[in-house]
Amino acid sequence: MSSNSIAVAPELIVRQIVATLTGWGMREEHARGSAEIMVEADLNGIDSHGIAILLYYEGLFQTGAINLNPNIRIERETAATALIDADGSLGHSVSVQAINLACDKAEKLGVGIVTVRRSDHYGAAGCYVARAAARGMVSLAFSNGFTRCVVPAGGSSPMFSTNPIAFGAPAKRNNPFIFDVATSTASIGKVNLAWLAGKSIPAGWVVGTDGAPVTDAAKARVIIYETGDGGLTPLGGTPEMSVHKGYGLNAMVEILSALLPGAMPAPLQHLRPHCGARTDTGHCFIVISPQAFRDLVAFHTDMDDMMDALRTSRPFSADRPVMVPGDIEWKTRELRSVDGVPLGRSLLEKLLSLSARAGSPYLLPDPAVV
Amino acid sequence: MSSNSIAVAPELIVRQIVATLTGWGMREEHARGSAEIMVEADLNGIDSHGIAILLYYEGLFQTGAINLNPNIRIERETAATALIDADGSLGHSVSVQAINLACDKAEKLGVGIVTVRRSDHYGAAGCYVARAAARGMVSLAFSNGFTRCVVPAGGSSPMFSTNPIAFGAPAKRNNPFIFDVATSTASIGKVNLAWLAGKSIPAGWVVGTDGAPVTDAAKARVIIYETGDGGLTPLGGTPEMSVHKGYGLNAMVEILSALLPGAMPAPLQHLRPHCGARTDTGHCFIVISPQAFRDLVAFHTDMDDMMDALRTSRPFSADRPVMVPGDIEWKTRELRSVDGVPLGRSLLEKLLSLSARAGSPYLLPDPAVV
Repeated sequence: MSSNSIAVAPELIVRQIVATLTGWGMREEHARGSAEIMVEADLNGIDSHGIAILLYYEGLFQTGAINLNPNIRIERETAATALIDADGSLGHSVSVQAINLACDKAEKLGVGIVTVRRSDHYGAAGCYVARAAARGMVSLAFSNGFTRCVVPAGGSSPMFSTNPIAFGAPAKRNNPFIFDVATSTASIGKVNLAWLAGKSIPAGWVVGTDGAPVTDAAKARVIIYETGDGGLTPLGGTPEMSVHKGYGLNAMVEILSALLPGAMPAPLQHLRPHCGARTDTGHCFIVISPQAFRDLVAFHTDMDDMMDALRTSRPFSADRPVMVPGDIEWKTRELRSVDGVPLGRSLLEKLLSLSARAGSPYLLPDPAVV
Repeated sequence: MSSNSIAVAPELIVRQIVATLTGWGMREEHARGSAEIMVEADLNGIDSHGIAILLYYEGLFQTGAINLNPNIRIERETAATALIDADGSLGHSVSVQAINLACDKAEKLGVGIVTVRRSDHYGAAGCYVARAAARGMVSLAFSNGFTRCVVPAGGSSPMFSTNPIAFGAPAKRNNPFIFDVATSTASIGKVNLAWLAGKSIPAGWVVGTDGAPVTDAAKARVIIYETGDGGLTPLGGTPEMSVHKGYGLNAMVEILSALLPGAMPAPLQHLRPHCGARTDTGHCFIVISPQAFRDLVAFHTDMDDMMDALRTSRPFSADRPVMVPGDIEWKTRELRSVDGVPLGRSLLEKLLSLSARAGSPYLLPDPAVV
């Protein structure tokens, strides 16, 4: 842990998040639902989606993008599917409800698909598939996003957000296989980190109007945040490295998470009158019960044996073994569950003033002593 | 069309494929099922998976990898799911059965998932999601493969095949959105094409034991076909371009298509006694009815408007508009359905001798006159 950070107990982080969200006027139950997903991101080392993301959510609340008192309801339902209207709420609580409902359906019929519309940011997608894995389920989670920052293959107008895919599958001896990635090559966050560190970014992360790589992090930020003349590349990055594949995945996530439930497709934002300040974000959760297809013990054995085979396969460098998706996060979680979550002084300072603006108690360590 | 090729009517290609497959001893109905999928690949311009792939299948038949008289049967079933045992058959016919069964289930319950085990190569995955799209369905198709050629992130032992993902979604004014890609950066076929053309391959397609890029196509082929000390990279290609994302997708496809139905996971081939000469390949088909979630007209309108918005978005170069996944294949199909499928002299020569070996009639044009 750096000398400018302090370890904070996860329970305290939950209390601070709940205090802030309820300070903004969110109902206690929803605030708790959001806090539980956010602290899970902090425990897993996905710091960008932990308590730090309150700084981003503050803007959503200020502009009225979030309905603080939503009437979340199931709009359509079959034995194997459901559509949930999130009524403009923040995405966490409704997504926990959605993945649990999909698990309930999968327990009965082998598969359950639940989509959500009129939602907003749902945090780290891996948290939802991890919940399904804890119930013994294989699952997929998709979400679109409101911020158009990823260009299509061959074009410079940002059409989609970083549209993440998460996938989870349970094992027995091993922690579940948990995979959670954006379908862009890099995230806005990584561009920002390079900029803060005064570094350039690799050719292929961001392109300009003519498709040429932009390696100056400051210029990349101007493109992403201001001009929109270019943007982040889909996974693959360049034509010779198969950027068309990342583009197709980026668009596939949009269809599954936005077009299927009837949320706002990002490429059509400018063409359609928008529903007030709300983002109308969509999610899609697919849950599959392995038992519908085979004996559960045999499935777990295959999962364990495959994960072991991957980890013991020949690494490029003897001191850096091959990992399985989720390994880093499970390891971080194990450490942080005991030691606490390291929060930096700069972040604590920002959360202190955020609490003052929200009129909510500040419960975390005094930044001055960090 | 090059001067060394001749246009052949799709019907004639179907007859030649059926003649060859039945010549090897395959039952007429299965031969026809395979031929229909293979000619679709030819029509769509996926020449590697059209009639040319008979040259690869010949090896499978010779080694006994394919059961010519399989007893394909549904092993497990719920209202929304099914597991099919392909009994060692070639993958096409059983996969058509699987996607149709998944569509039937989705028509009733909104979703259907059908997995297949003990299968073999199923050709171009896009053909199956196109069939579901023709029935108004959104769908996903996954398959693993027997040939381990893709390395994990950080390692040099090939663990998986190129494990493709296909996704389809119907529209109204537009042809369906059809996306079909390997989860590796490049395919073995592309490495072979570079080698045949005497060209080097881009850094990032293939890595050696130490993770360093291999750009010599001949050396890359030795790695892939002989030594296995390195291999094709997962999509992303390099750590800084997020190769861990392609690796996770590569492994996700293995879990969905091989571990879920109980087919042979590629990383475990060497650890387990194999079922004779059979590859025990697995597939997974997920079919979703948009009507389970919203009004179908509204869904089609969103699909059409989104596809139009992508195509009319700002391209890097004015003369190369942004495309939607499937555009090239639909265009090629339109042309070839009228003009016929161009088959090269060299391919015809190979098919002529193949027919002789199979003891089946050769129905295509005489290579000598091409």
